[in-house]
Amino acid sequence: MKTRTILLALFSVLTLNACQSPKPSDVDSSTAEPVLSDPLPSWNEGAAKSSILDFVAATTTVGSPDFVAPADRIATFDNDGCLWSEQPFYFQLQFSLDRVKEMANQHPEWNSDPLFSAAIAGDVKKVLSFGEHGLLKLIMASHSGMTAEEFDADVIEWINTARHPKTNLLYKEMVYQPMLEVFDYLRANGFKTFIVSGGGIDFMRPWSQEVYGIPSEQVIGSSIKSKFELIDGKGTIIKLPELNFIDDKEGKPVGIHQHIGKPPIAAFGNSDGDLQMLQYSAGTEGKSLQVYVHHTDADREWAYDRGSPIGGFDKGWDYATENGWTIVDMKNDWKKIYPKD
Amino acid sequence: MKTRTILLALFSVLTLNACQSPKPSDVDSSTAEPVLSDPLPSWNEGAAKSSILDFVAATTTVGSPDFVAPADRIATFDNDGCLWSEQPFYFQLQFSLDRVKEMANQHPEWNSDPLFSAAIAGDVKKVLSFGEHGLLKLIMASHSGMTAEEFDADVIEWINTARHPKTNLLYKEMVYQPMLEVFDYLRANGFKTFIVSGGGIDFMRPWSQEVYGIPSEQVIGSSIKSKFELIDGKGTIIKLPELNFIDDKEGKPVGIHQHIGKPPIAAFGNSDGDLQMLQYSAGTEGKSLQVYVHHTDADREWAYDRGSPIGGFDKGWDYATENGWTIVDMKNDWKKIYPKD
Repeated sequence: MKTRTILLALFSVLTLNACQSPKPSDVDSSTAEPVLSDPLPSWNEGAAKSSILDFVAATTTVGSPDFVAPADRIATFDNDGCLWSEQPFYFQLQFSLDRVKEMANQHPEWNSDPLFSAAIAGDVKKVLSFGEHGLLKLIMASHSGMTAEEFDADVIEWINTARHPKTNLLYKEMVYQPMLEVFDYLRANGFKTFIVSGGGIDFMRPWSQEVYGIPSEQVIGSSIKSKFELIDGKGTIIKLPELNFIDDKEGKPVGIHQHIGKPPIAAFGNSDGDLQMLQYSAGTEGKSLQVYVHHTDADREWAYDRGSPIGGFDKGWDYATENGWTIVDMKNDWKKIYPKD
Repeated sequence: MKTRTILLALFSVLTLNACQSPKPSDVDSSTAEPVLSDPLPSWNEGAAKSSILDFVAATTTVGSPDFVAPADRIATFDNDGCLWSEQPFYFQLQFSLDRVKEMANQHPEWNSDPLFSAAIAGDVKKVLSFGEHGLLKLIMASHSGMTAEEFDADVIEWINTARHPKTNLLYKEMVYQPMLEVFDYLRANGFKTFIVSGGGIDFMRPWSQEVYGIPSEQVIGSSIKSKFELIDGKGTIIKLPELNFIDDKEGKPVGIHQHIGKPPIAAFGNSDGDLQMLQYSAGTEGKSLQVYVHHTDADREWAYDRGSPIGGFDKGWDYATENGWTIVDMKNDWKKIYPKD
């Protein structure tokens, strides 16, 4: 695979040069165009970077056999582990634990519940021992029973103040600079960018515009049910402790169909939970792009893949390598991880 | 009420003139701005037109106390009876009947089912006698059991060929010219326009861009469930005969919350099914706009309101008049109904 990667990289660089350098006969010094600045400056040259540049050139150049109309330039991105870090456990779980602590004095019954008392004590290991069902219970409790407006305000407060224990950065500062550049680059080329996350849709929306430049209506995620009520004559959405939709694995293409109504021609993920979204994207007619971010940088971020309880990358790895999808090696492909690096 | 309407209309015209006419001292002949063309040419002058113009001016003029940031300029529109006609029955029902006829030879069992045999015979009156449950059964049968791609192709074929028995127009030609102008006007002022319909999301999306200029991801509607499958290695969405979401009445704000994540500051409807969406919009902080289209033109379109089995306008009428919402009188407010008029 290494030889193939190097060949691909060389080929891409050559192709790129052939496309971008005007022929000498077309240029005279007075009208020479300025050298185009690198749209992905935090990416090292290589197969991953080239695959993104080549895909965008092919699908957006008028007259290219792979040209795609702007309305169909849909790109979807997983969030946890693809746009921001997800270790030692999903950041939304930390938000839920912090919320449960805040709400505890209104819920004396939680003290006699082993899951909730572990959460209140901040004993994450014990919380995780309750499995997915336990996490869901915590999320329900901390994400429902208030209006949508109140919940938004809580999330905004948290995202602007809570810090990660390892980096001491705000969680919103632990987003990947190279992916922010991909966002800008795709949008400058007429793509619409969407988040498609297993995480909570209502948790991501209040800050997606500020942090990623993605408006709330372009965020898709897991959700709980809600209801409408007139409260003192004011139309209000109230969040209910009832599961609505799990936007993970087979759920991701279903969520995309529900929200967007057409498949993405470019899809980015990092774990087995993203495989079906990438397969859905690969099933489109014409050229498409599938990118897996591989966590290989234990120094600057974390290194994990097969068998990791969070961000496990087994089936996805096998399918990606068999099908020649792009795999980003964070350690070698990215010059920086976070904007503040 | 008539006096009030006339007063409002007069007041609006006066206000509008006051806003739009520059003071003589500010103008000299060499720099006079060209007279702005009317953004709503198919609208007669009056309270309805003025309320739309005033709202847009107030929310988009920098320095206005009612200024709204572009990200929050969300406008939602019902479809049936608000953007296109809905008589003698919802156009999607005609599509369903046509589909059932087409599919009948693959379903010999339908011949012994009174609902389906009425549908195949085109006996709409009998079909309607089975009530909502019957309609749902027909829609399920005609909208599921195929891939999303196949269904899209069927809808596109139908919308480009099927004609309305009364007007002989294509159904897609029975859209309201004055509302198309509202779309253009709002978009030119930084609004994002969304359809929020009780009708089927997958039925509207394939033609919403061409007919309304609304991309598929800005269409919200009722839906059936779907699933993801790899078919011959190709990621595919398959439509299932199972109800997912009814986007009507209280469902409309819930659908808006799910898809957009924030309330609209402008909402347009025509029936009781839209009341909660308009209430949700009215509940936003700051200036907002609620518009009800009232079907008053039996000659050029249809006239109906209270007690109509389709597009019934009872509670909505009462609430709108009590709360001073805009009511569009189609006969008197609209110069044309359809683009071809």
